[in-house]
Amino acid sequence: MSKLPNITTSIFSVMSQLANEHGAINLSQGFPNFPEDERLLQISERIIRENIHQYTPMAGLPSLLEKIANQTLKQYGRKVNTATEMLITAGATQGVFTAINTFVNHGDEVLILDPSYDSYEPSVLVAGGKPVRVSLNDDYTPNFNRIESAISVKTKMIIINNPHNPTGRIWTEQDFEALETILEKHPQILILGDEVYEYITFSQPHISFNTRPKLVERTIIASSFGKSLHVTGWKVGYLIAPENLMYEMKKVHQFLVFSVNSFSQHAISEYLNVVDFSEVSKMYQRKRDLFQNLIKDSRFELMPCDGTYFQVVNYNQISSKNDVDFAKELIVNHGVASIPISVFYNDATDRHMLRFCFAKTDETLIAAAEKLNQI
Amino acid sequence: MSKLPNITTSIFSVMSQLANEHGAINLSQGFPNFPEDERLLQISERIIRENIHQYTPMAGLPSLLEKIANQTLKQYGRKVNTATEMLITAGATQGVFTAINTFVNHGDEVLILDPSYDSYEPSVLVAGGKPVRVSLNDDYTPNFNRIESAISVKTKMIIINNPHNPTGRIWTEQDFEALETILEKHPQILILGDEVYEYITFSQPHISFNTRPKLVERTIIASSFGKSLHVTGWKVGYLIAPENLMYEMKKVHQFLVFSVNSFSQHAISEYLNVVDFSEVSKMYQRKRDLFQNLIKDSRFELMPCDGTYFQVVNYNQISSKNDVDFAKELIVNHGVASIPISVFYNDATDRHMLRFCFAKTDETLIAAAEKLNQI
Ligand SMILES: CSCCC(=O)C(=O)O
Ligand SMILES: CSCCC(=O)C(=O)O
Repeated sequence: MSKLPNITTSIFSVMSQLANEHGAINLSQGFPNFPEDERLLQISERIIRENIHQYTPMAGLPSLLEKIANQTLKQYGRKVNTATEMLITAGATQGVFTAINTFVNHGDEVLILDPSYDSYEPSVLVAGGKPVRVSLNDDYTPNFNRIESAISVKTKMIIINNPHNPTGRIWTEQDFEALETILEKHPQILILGDEVYEYITFSQPHISFNTRPKLVERTIIASSFGKSLHVTGWKVGYLIAPENLMYEMKKVHQFLVFSVNSFSQHAISEYLNVVDFSEVSKMYQRKRDLFQNLIKDSRFELMPCDGTYFQVVNYNQISSKNDVDFAKELIVNHGVASIPISVFYNDATDRHMLRFCFAKTDETLIAAAEKLNQI
Repeated sequence: MSKLPNITTSIFSVMSQLANEHGAINLSQGFPNFPEDERLLQISERIIRENIHQYTPMAGLPSLLEKIANQTLKQYGRKVNTATEMLITAGATQGVFTAINTFVNHGDEVLILDPSYDSYEPSVLVAGGKPVRVSLNDDYTPNFNRIESAISVKTKMIIINNPHNPTGRIWTEQDFEALETILEKHPQILILGDEVYEYITFSQPHISFNTRPKLVERTIIASSFGKSLHVTGWKVGYLIAPENLMYEMKKVHQFLVFSVNSFSQHAISEYLNVVDFSEVSKMYQRKRDLFQNLIKDSRFELMPCDGTYFQVVNYNQISSKNDVDFAKELIVNHGVASIPISVFYNDATDRHMLRFCFAKTDETLIAAAEKLNQI
């Protein structure tokens, strides 16, 4: 008996492999194809011969925790306690899995917005919990009536990814207020806020769950350096939560992985002395604008993109094929790889939407747009 | 409601911190204090500027999988299939947790020998399973009558750590035969073989579960490079299992962590071209012999040590204190940190035993022995 009977090969693997076979430009899986920051590489080279290759403490390298805490002072207006409220994880994926598997018991329900990043639902299933999907509005904004209706006495957690992968949407002040009004009546519900794209937002500022006095006591934030520092392979992320919640997550973490790669923690800790996170949003805003401009006259229709490094488009004017078939056709016949949005829906709903990753060199984006404009 | 109500701060953290406070020689947590191999450091420096900082494939870096598979040809007499039977994990701890949380369902029983490494029981509890402890004999050899009696229709898995941390014991041909006879009657029971110390054995050779034709079809092996390559902080391990079992574990792994630190996978992959694992046993045998010789005339009594880098001693002649109190006294009054063996027992049974880690420089071992000889 499988805990995940419906899971097959990851769409990210499928699309990347097909892209490789056909020599297509790969705008599918989300990772940058430009070089790492020279300063980070220099730090990495320099520290190799330091004494950094044995276990770090279980909750993370103290200097890295301290740097993140200093950053939270700017982000949340409150410096998070390094000893009691923080934990370094092997990427945000491990953070999300750990939060879910710490608090979700057999039979508990977890609200997951639809569409959503693909790891939430399986993580709930491994915990023996029941994922309850709540559809976003057609413009990918949250629908609070549906959220409220989906709550039951068994609801243990709601998972919210903000900025939102795959849709590129971010939460507004009004969204937070609406959620606060609902959750006031349900003190047992925890919030798992996946904020891995917190440093990649454009028109509006990112609002963290941890800036909301009415929510912070029940909020677990998962974040990561992979996206904001362009090192998705390093797998260094972190969890932030109030002491009582963190205490339980640390126990699970201790036996799930014990500690996180020491070299990468040391390198990131030093790099945080010099990196300016505001550069990240600027850089990606420029890439978003470039990509949008390049394909604005194509037959693909651009959806709004307020954050993340993903651009969603619809192809209603081009094909009536479902999005998985169309995404494959796009690789095989036109040489561009994307992710069909249906894979982020529980029921694989096809809405003729594709997701393109624009965390790529300008040359890559220009070459891809040239192909997309010919369709 | 906590899934792990009885877990408090890890004994490894407690003892290391107390050792630091009192400037004691730290033979508690298992990690080497000698420099990494110069060849590994050179590889690490050289590859930093290669394109190795984005996600590796979910199941692991292909070249690393291939190197491990070549190694299995020597170890098991059969080259494991890289595509279907292997998975790179963030250390063996994540491998063990993943195996347990893939196959253990709510209410399933898992046999765990007593004493055992401290991560098994909590990993079973997180899965909603029921740990069933089976005491080893007083000389730390397995007791097969007790194992057989502990089996029920609900038994899903038996976890065996060989070589065995904390006792340093390894399984004999006769042990395997006895287990095979028992398990023949119980086809539903999986074996989780934690073989992280496979390259650290002395008098007898290590026998892997994967060399046993009667067991291999139900065996999951967890191993790691942290111990055998002296980089415990890198957190690169792996799982090996038959395709049907691996298929399910990969699904959980994908959503638990997705992939493992790319830099460390690349560095280890290259290092495996030159490393000779037989050197590892030789090096540690010399250290074991050195440490045993240094304290053989002390009032500590040496227990047999056939593998791992841990030496167990009893202190019956020295104190009637329980082992946790005595271990603390040893730090505070005598300047040597160890691990009390009771922490590896489910019921914290005190048998007046301590574990010393001898993965240390000769100077460290000599300095520690000097102190132990004065007691
Ligand atoms: C962990 S692989 C997927 C990478 C990613 O975040 C995405 O493409 O959505
Ligand atoms: C993961 S910390 C413990 C290290 C170790 O294997 C031990 O000391 O037993």
